[in-house]
Amino acid sequence: MMRIGDIILRKRDGERLSDAELRYFVQGYTEGRIPDYQAAAYLMAVYFRGMDSRELAVWTDCMMRSGELLDLSRLQGRKIDKHSTGGVGDKVSICLAPLVAACGVGVPMISGRGLGHTGGTLDKLEAIPGFCVDIPPECFVDIVEDIGFCMAGQTESLVPADRKLYALRDVTATVESVPLIASSILSKKLAEGIDGLVMDVKVGRGAFMKTMEDALELADTIVELGGQMGTRVVALITGMDQPLGNAVGNALETREALEVLMGKGPDDLVELTLTLAAEMLLLGEAAGSLEEGRAKAKRAIEDGSALERMGRLISRQNGDPRVIEDLKLLPSAKHRKEVRSPSDGWIESVDAEKIGRAAMRLGAGRDTKDDVIDPAVGLVLHRKVGEKVAAGDILCEVHLNDPKLMNETEKPVLDAFSIVTKEVESGTLIKERIG
Amino acid sequence: MMRIGDIILRKRDGERLSDAELRYFVQGYTEGRIPDYQAAAYLMAVYFRGMDSRELAVWTDCMMRSGELLDLSRLQGRKIDKHSTGGVGDKVSICLAPLVAACGVGVPMISGRGLGHTGGTLDKLEAIPGFCVDIPPECFVDIVEDIGFCMAGQTESLVPADRKLYALRDVTATVESVPLIASSILSKKLAEGIDGLVMDVKVGRGAFMKTMEDALELADTIVELGGQMGTRVVALITGMDQPLGNAVGNALETREALEVLMGKGPDDLVELTLTLAAEMLLLGEAAGSLEEGRAKAKRAIEDGSALERMGRLISRQNGDPRVIEDLKLLPSAKHRKEVRSPSDGWIESVDAEKIGRAAMRLGAGRDTKDDVIDPAVGLVLHRKVGEKVAAGDILCEVHLNDPKLMNETEKPVLDAFSIVTKEVESGTLIKERIG
Repeated sequence: MMRIGDIILRKRDGERLSDAELRYFVQGYTEGRIPDYQAAAYLMAVYFRGMDSRELAVWTDCMMRSGELLDLSRLQGRKIDKHSTGGVGDKVSICLAPLVAACGVGVPMISGRGLGHTGGTLDKLEAIPGFCVDIPPECFVDIVEDIGFCMAGQTESLVPADRKLYALRDVTATVESVPLIASSILSKKLAEGIDGLVMDVKVGRGAFMKTMEDALELADTIVELGGQMGTRVVALITGMDQPLGNAVGNALETREALEVLMGKGPDDLVELTLTLAAEMLLLGEAAGSLEEGRAKAKRAIEDGSALERMGRLISRQNGDPRVIEDLKLLPSAKHRKEVRSPSDGWIESVDAEKIGRAAMRLGAGRDTKDDVIDPAVGLVLHRKVGEKVAAGDILCEVHLNDPKLMNETEKPVLDAFSIVTKEVESGTLIKERIG
Repeated sequence: MMRIGDIILRKRDGERLSDAELRYFVQGYTEGRIPDYQAAAYLMAVYFRGMDSRELAVWTDCMMRSGELLDLSRLQGRKIDKHSTGGVGDKVSICLAPLVAACGVGVPMISGRGLGHTGGTLDKLEAIPGFCVDIPPECFVDIVEDIGFCMAGQTESLVPADRKLYALRDVTATVESVPLIASSILSKKLAEGIDGLVMDVKVGRGAFMKTMEDALELADTIVELGGQMGTRVVALITGMDQPLGNAVGNALETREALEVLMGKGPDDLVELTLTLAAEMLLLGEAAGSLEEGRAKAKRAIEDGSALERMGRLISRQNGDPRVIEDLKLLPSAKHRKEVRSPSDGWIESVDAEKIGRAAMRLGAGRDTKDDVIDPAVGLVLHRKVGEKVAAGDILCEVHLNDPKLMNETEKPVLDAFSIVTKEVESGTLIKERIG
């Protein structure tokens, strides 16, 4: 007979757990037979001991199968998704998914809500008047079939093991474990029934992974784990020292993502979107090379097909499709204030974490699960790393509904900008590709 | 504001916790504000990261003060206790406490019940007809005052933090942590209000600490921790490869302990008892040196004063005091069977763990908390390490109530004995002294 105490002990002592032991743990915990306190001790032992690749694959597979799986088998063509470890101003999903769909690859994208600086993809999408992210699984598959993609929130029935484990990890200091992070991501993504995944692993001050070493470890682990589970994963490690794009805040970010589809997005955001799109089209067999994929994606922006695709999705998910022609239909804040440069020089850095925190204080993010987000507020950067600035130039525009908050915003925003007297390089956005 | 999540995180990352953080944890957990799952994650982090000496002292102090403290201040003279990490056949407390009390040092001994091979000291004492170990704190102090010692079980009000933490450690694979073991022992012993403690750290096959290295680490930790808390602790590391004495089983062990007080105990048990008594008398300032302490203890056996003291305690704790004159009043098993040597030679080893398990199968120990112990059953060794044996000689006498159990007892008992053809040394019982 299997005993949970022995399983904890063996993991604690660095022994390799059998498939049956891992299955016993994941099923037992999900079904409530293993209490939280034994699961917590186990997770902390995993934090210290890790999992080998076989353990990790079995663990992730058990998590994935802990609930319903999406069945996309009746859909023609390949289905590819993207996942980002998250960062400040990361609105890529909103322009990437319609772009890839417009190029003929299905994107069944299930996202989470953000806890932190700004909302997650779901919160950003909800800035579109009427847009609904609560889509039952049957409808989700229909929408992917009809429009080529769908963007929805996780339902109760999908990967319940992860929901339970994540809630426990969150309060037991066991979030920062590479195998636990990798299994949490892949169990959810593979439950979507996808054929391939592009991982955007953010690295830098505004990211969960602060060092290149940590980012590489996570990227390697996820790529290998995907392979073990029979799903091709490609990982890009991309910079998150400064915010991505210029906009930080929910409606502001959705607006910027739509601007990408209109051919007028900021350079770094466009670059990352095209790079990720090329990877997804290659994985999705809609392109024979990254170059071909990139060219195809570029064309789908230029010919308006990606924007048109987004309009159809908005309409199908109950949103106001006129937004793609009139960005003013997005909520906007009552006040705009400028933060101006105190000196001449070049922007050496824009601290993503500080910008993110300033946005959160304005009401763009959540501190606890129950906080309500203000979709309209946020920041728009006017200068980014490597750019020249003169004293008095606008560094950043603050969008806010409560003018009193300007006092506590200006100083942190100014602090986020480091201005130097010598010219600086803008740094590379895409640092590494694994897969 | 202090947050438990941060405390777990800091311990996980090997940082030093502040006094306030440790207090917050111990109090919060004892009072039920910190849930089991966060405590479990914390304990596993302690398993991997340990505690430094300051952390350990504060932690132990908080545990000690989590409930009532015994107030022995009105008692004349010094109060010294002994604690053993436990082993097969370890009945030393039962002869040691009256012996030390007879020499003028108070022994307020609070013991636990055993889970494992044989019962704990309480179970062995309860083999004496009528003997009661449930003594309320007020009576306990009175008895120590009147008789010079008392042997009782832990009450609900003494060190509740340890009871709660131990129960959690038991099911989360966090028992085997030296700082957690040390704090568990010392918090309970120091709550007795003692002036000094002699630790008997067992090492070997039948002990919790299997290697000299582990035993030394625990001994060093406890001696240093005692010093930090202002109580002198002396630790002896003593052998537990073979059982201590000859008897294994509750009434059989009590009988053997009483025989020590009658001057006819087995050599190793007498030797360990006198050694520990000498240490306690030195700590208790009833002797100026270990030699003087040993001589005093020897005399208290020879002149019958130690046995007489035990008789008074038995009477006071509601037991039948005639037992000290008539050992036949102790419960005895219905059947006795002999296990005989298959060959000539010398006894190289008697595996304490195997003997312990055989005794447990006869009914002498507990597998789970709710198992009921049979006080009469057990084993009596007729040969120990270093002794000569001829084929057909009795190696061991099995005392049992269910004759059917003999079949499953003989083989494991024979397996416990290793007989070789060359003469062997008996090995040292007392291996190291720290303090």
